[in-house]
Formats: sequence, structure tokens, C-alpha cells
Amino acid sequence: MRAVLVVGDGMADRPLRELGWKTPLEAARKPELDRVAKTGVCGIIDPISPGTPPGSDAATLALLGYDPLKVYSGRGALEAIGSGVEVLPGDVAFRCNFATVNKNLVVLDRRAGRIANEDAAKLAESLQKVKPKKSSNFEFLFKNTIQHRAALVIRGPKLSTAISDSDPEVAGKRVLDVEPLYEGPEAKRTARIVNELMQQFRKVLNGHPVNKERAKRGLPRANMILCRGAGTVPKIVRLSEEFGIKGACVAAVSLIRGVCKVAGMRLIDVRGATGTHQTDYMAKAKAAVQALKTNDLVFLHVKAADVASHDGNARLKIDIIEKIDKMLGCVLGNIDLDSTYVVVTADHTTSTATRNHAGDPVPVAISGPYVRRDEVAEFSERACAAGGLNRIRGMDLMRIVMDLLGRSKKFGS
Amino acid sequence: MRAVLVVGDGMADRPLRELGWKTPLEAARKPELDRVAKTGVCGIIDPISPGTPPGSDAATLALLGYDPLKVYSGRGALEAIGSGVEVLPGDVAFRCNFATVNKNLVVLDRRAGRIANEDAAKLAESLQKVKPKKSSNFEFLFKNTIQHRAALVIRGPKLSTAISDSDPEVAGKRVLDVEPLYEGPEAKRTARIVNELMQQFRKVLNGHPVNKERAKRGLPRANMILCRGAGTVPKIVRLSEEFGIKGACVAAVSLIRGVCKVAGMRLIDVRGATGTHQTDYMAKAKAAVQALKTNDLVFLHVKAADVASHDGNARLKIDIIEKIDKMLGCVLGNIDLDSTYVVVTADHTTSTATRNHAGDPVPVAISGPYVRRDEVAEFSERACAAGGLNRIRGMDLMRIVMDLLGRSKKFGS
Repeated sequence: MRAVLVVGDGMADRPLRELGWKTPLEAARKPELDRVAKTGVCGIIDPISPGTPPGSDAATLALLGYDPLKVYSGRGALEAIGSGVEVLPGDVAFRCNFATVNKNLVVLDRRAGRIANEDAAKLAESLQKVKPKKSSNFEFLFKNTIQHRAALVIRGPKLSTAISDSDPEVAGKRVLDVEPLYEGPEAKRTARIVNELMQQFRKVLNGHPVNKERAKRGLPRANMILCRGAGTVPKIVRLSEEFGIKGACVAAVSLIRGVCKVAGMRLIDVRGATGTHQTDYMAKAKAAVQALKTNDLVFLHVKAADVASHDGNARLKIDIIEKIDKMLGCVLGNIDLDSTYVVVTADHTTSTATRNHAGDPVPVAISGPYVRRDEVAEFSERACAAGGLNRIRGMDLMRIVMDLLGRSKKFGS
Repeated sequence: MRAVLVVGDGMADRPLRELGWKTPLEAARKPELDRVAKTGVCGIIDPISPGTPPGSDAATLALLGYDPLKVYSGRGALEAIGSGVEVLPGDVAFRCNFATVNKNLVVLDRRAGRIANEDAAKLAESLQKVKPKKSSNFEFLFKNTIQHRAALVIRGPKLSTAISDSDPEVAGKRVLDVEPLYEGPEAKRTARIVNELMQQFRKVLNGHPVNKERAKRGLPRANMILCRGAGTVPKIVRLSEEFGIKGACVAAVSLIRGVCKVAGMRLIDVRGATGTHQTDYMAKAKAAVQALKTNDLVFLHVKAADVASHDGNARLKIDIIEKIDKMLGCVLGNIDLDSTYVVVTADHTTSTATRNHAGDPVPVAISGPYVRRDEVAEFSERACAAGGLNRIRGMDLMRIVMDLLGRSKKFGS
């Protein structure tokens, strides 16, 4: 027995006025998602806990069976790991942006015009050559990933993740000083290290030929690095150890790839998988089908629905859900349904109305040979709430799936 | 107000192909169970937590209101206590089997041909006379219970339950050395004590007249004792103290009797109650009715459905469910339903397909004067999932019942 877990990032929603008070899932034509609901057992999931809006990192940790309240240790390390940067226990890692600021350090563009990979790579190469003061006693790794995105890893003794972000999160505000979030010497030291490094980075970026060239071409200069989400590697037991399974991850975005990697899953690279709504859905489906031949669990993640919700674009969200549905159809049509449990869910609700993550539960459906099929015939937030699983926690799902796969451990005798 | 809690061991199941994808509960004719569902409030219970297959001991502790993750301390002590062997705090107790091994200690029959009680009693009497080395500084109790089953209690300073089983669990494998499961001196000492004692036992059994006689009669010799489930008495508050109630237990199998005894319930012996599918269901019903006259809570347990599931016998399971139904009918017909809450559930799901305990939830129905009766009209896994209790944890049930009985404590003021 095997299982494929299909996760639509931010796919769940609240009812929208513009959709006649339907949610995008309710408004979409999605015969394949409905087929899983119809042939399976359904329910709703609180990724973290009722009313708590989850980040995708914490929610994905939960869907993989970890208690997010116990293991979550910040976004930075997960995203760095997901983009191929090594993060060791004790390191503090950050998600960074190349950004454009004016001379008063007010952010003009948090993404430096979504700078091209080539430019970012040249800048990153120069930044990696920066020499911190010897007395500071740390090393760092800086790597650009996709467009304006980058990872920074600080390595050395006595570091802490209890520091604030320098990224003000919106344009028009001044870059923030990184502050220690508690009175310990580690937090103070780490904040000082990051602030000093950002100043050194700024000098290098200001005089950099790439930026001079960009100015000539009328492009925003990438003259600042913004840091956020200080994190360490979470201390978790890999799924292979916990359940004796082999897992693989088909996901484009670094954060999700990082979570799957720390959970011990193999990361599969798919040409054309971009994390945007133009991603190659069919290529992801085929990669998942292929991975199911040699893995017990395949995690198939699509980012786009979340992006559409953050942009307040309900029509685009419906379109993406319909593409996810076709992707699912391609998976269902190419696997042995007698030996595969198919699980579909979302990592969290993103409200297209508020353009933010929301704490509402997400729908889930599990089809496969021995599930207690219920009467639910539609995969949506409200239809699944009447399902046989009732309401469970995010961290329960993986144990339920592993139990169906015969991989659970008895408690008691 | 009083309550009777009727528990069908392993009665819940997954849908089975051979039953047209019904579960045995769904396929059985069970008007009395359905009547409790119809007149009551229904739901599903995760005995331990979603997706975790429970052992009957841990699940029964949960159904009696205890948090199994906090109080469960191994099977051995519970089973020993349930078979009338005294286990004191600090003792380490084991569930044992009389078994048949060849000269290389390969297990030929884990139950020594389900040896008769008379033979086992004579062997046990001789084993109790074994003198451990003085320097080992421990005493032991060994008592046969039913057929091949026996209890062993080790008493002395510095003992540990963190040791492995000698029982390989299947015939055809060699008897295992008991190993310490952590580096502490207590675990090493306890493992050594048990290994030495098993060798001494083996010598006594090998030369025993009972075994010579058995060989003559063509019966497998009971020439080895297998140990498993090292456990101590769980540290729990009795139900009488927690809720101020008097409780009684009608159960045949030692393990369940042990759990009820440590919870402070009186054990009722019922002639003809065997723990097999030929148990005297009506005698158990009558004993429960009688016990309800002088107790606030009666726990009525039937083992047989679990056994049928472990044997993969769906038809027998249905037959047993129908007998449990008649037993319940006898209870319902002989109690005052205006002053008695009737609770029916299972301690766990046993999958007749996999022949193992499964982590799926179990159905529950509670009838009685003041419950919030719902629309559920059938006692089954799927029907009850739509009930008014929704999905609760095993340890919640007893508090719900005690609250109906007016025995709960207010939290806050």
C-alpha cells in the first residue's frame, strides 16, 4: 500500500460575495477532487488549532505528522534547506530579499523589480566574499535562490533565533534594525552580527557593477538585503525512522521543499514546476506518478492557489483549482487505485477577501480500499465538514494515513 | 442515576470486501444496539489518538477516564492483577505462556497445545518452588490462570520494566533472550534475573512428571515459559475517589479485569464467562443487571469479537455481534431505563482484513433520560460518525458519563 498526499497551498477559503457567497472550491468545476470525496472519507482539519491562521511551513510540518507547537523553529532554516543551502544544528538561517531602498533606507521595492536570477547570482557571489570582523567569531553562507529570494546562514557559537526581522514587510517603510527579542547575550550578539553584516552588504551592493548596469537599463537597483524568519533546523524524527517508509516530495517552492527534506523525504526536481500559476501541472502529476513507483508516500504540492488568494483574485483561484483538478485526474488515471490511498487537502485557508491566511479549517478527503466511505460527494470546505472523519488536527492526518498503510505502532498491548 | 458501559472488544472494523464493503457491525442484525443509538446521542471515539491502534489494556484505561499516554505502564501487571495475583508498587509483572520448544529453543507451539488448567496448575506449583540465587536478591510469584496463560511477578529492589520480551510472538522462531532496553543498572539486573529464572524453570519443566505424562498421551510438552509485557501497577486514582462512585466489572479476560481492578471496581465472577465466542452472554447480562442494583457504574465487557477479527472470520464476528446484541437486549429489558444511562462502544477497531488492531475511531452511543438525542438510528462506525457527540477521545467518555450521573466536578466557579 502507498499513499499520495495532494496539497493545494491556501486552496481553502471563506465564502465570497463576488461568488454568490460560494468559496472558490465550491464555485470551481472539479470532478476529480469530487471523485476522491465521493469514493472516500471526508472531514475538516485544523492545521494548527481552531482559529489559528497557519504559515505554510508550520502547516506542512503538521500535515507530515509533527506537532507544530513543539517542533516549529522558524522559517529561515526550512527555506534555506529547501533551496539547497546546508544548515547545521546551531546555525541561524534567514529568508532574505534583494530589495531597493532610497538613501534614507526607505524600502521602494521589496523585490528589486523581481530581479533576474543572473543579476542576483552575481551580487550574491560578491556578498559571499564579505569578511566579517574576526572578533565577531562567525561565518556565513549567502545564496540567491529564485529571483529576489535568497538564504542567509549564520554559523558560530552562541547564536539565537530570538531576534526581529529587518524586513518591514511593506514598501514605503524604513528598513528595520534587527533587535534582540529577549535579554540573553546570544540574542544581542546575533542581532549585532546581522546588523553589521547588512551594513557591509549594503556597501558592496551600492558600488556593484550589476547595479550600475541595472540603473542604466532603468531597472531598480538591488541595493539592500532584507532578512526575516530567523530559524534553526527543527529537531524532528524523519518519517523513514518513525514509520519505516520512503517518501518523496514534488514541490517547487523552497519552503515546502525544506520541510519535506527535514522530514527525510527525497526532493524531486520537475522541469516547469515554478510555484506560480503558470507551473506545469501535468509535469508535476507525472513526477508524482513516477515517484509512487518507488516510494510509500508522495507529497504533491501546488503553490498557486495561495498566491491568487493573496492577490485577491477569486477568478484566478478558481482557474488554478480547476488546473489542480486536472493534475489530480492525471495522477488518478495513472496509478493503481486498489493499492494507493489518495489524500487531498489544503495546508491552510487563505481568504481571498482579506488576502491573508485565516484560521478556518481546511477540507480533507481520503480515498482508498479500506476507508469508511461516507456520504460526502463534493470536495469543499462545507461539504467535507459533514464527513466521517469529523474534525481532526493537522498532525493527526499522517498517523491516519500511516495506519491505513499498516505502518502505525500499537499503543498498549 | 446509574450507568452501564457495554464494550465489545475489537467490535469496530473497516469495510470488508466480502461483506459488500460493509463492516461487520453494518452487516449484523442488531436491533438492541440500534435502539441505544436511536434513543441516544452518538459519536465516534479515538481510544488513544487518531490513527493510533490501541492495545485493549491502554484503550480500557482510556474508556475508564484515564489518559493512557500518562498512566499506561505495561500489560504484565494489569493481567497479573486481573488473574488474582497481587502486584505491589515496585514489582515487575509479566504475562507468561506455557509453550513447547525443541532442544534448540525454537518455539513449536506458543500455547503448549492450549494445555489444560489441571496440568498447568501442577507445573506452576513446581515452578513456584524454584529457589533463585540468594545473591540475586529477589522473590517471585508464578501463577497459572486459564489454559496456557500465566502471570509472573518479580519483587525486589531496583527493578525496571525497560526490558524486552522472551516471547518471539510466532512459532518457528527461537526463544529470545530478555535484553535491557536502556543503559541503567536496573534494566540490566531485571533482564538477568528473568533470563536466569527462565533457565531454572526450563530445568524443572523438562523433567516434570506432568510433561512425561503429556508426551505419553501424545500432547505437546509444556517445556518452556515465555514472558512478555513487563509492567508495573499504574499510578492512578480510583474511580471511587475521583467521582465518588461504586463500580463493578463483568469481564472474563484477565487483562480487562486487571484494568478495572486498578480503577477500583469490584470484579464479578460469572460462571460460563470464558472470553471466547462460546461465552455465556446471558449469564453476563444477568450479572450486569444484578450488579446495577448496588453499583453506580457497571462495566460489561465481551472479548469474542476481537478474537474473531484476529482470526479473519467476518461471519463469526457478525454472529458474535448479534449475540452481544441479545445480551444487551437482556440488560435493557431488566433495568430501569429512566434511571440508567446505557453506553455502548468498542475499545478499538480490529480489522478483519489485516487481522490487526487499527487506528480508526470506534462508534459510541449513550442513551438515557437527559442525553441530547440525535438523528442517528444505527449503531455502526459510519452512522455514529454523524452523531451529536462528534469525535471525542477515549478518556473523555467517562467524564461525559459521570457528568450525566451528576458526579462531575465543576472547573472554575
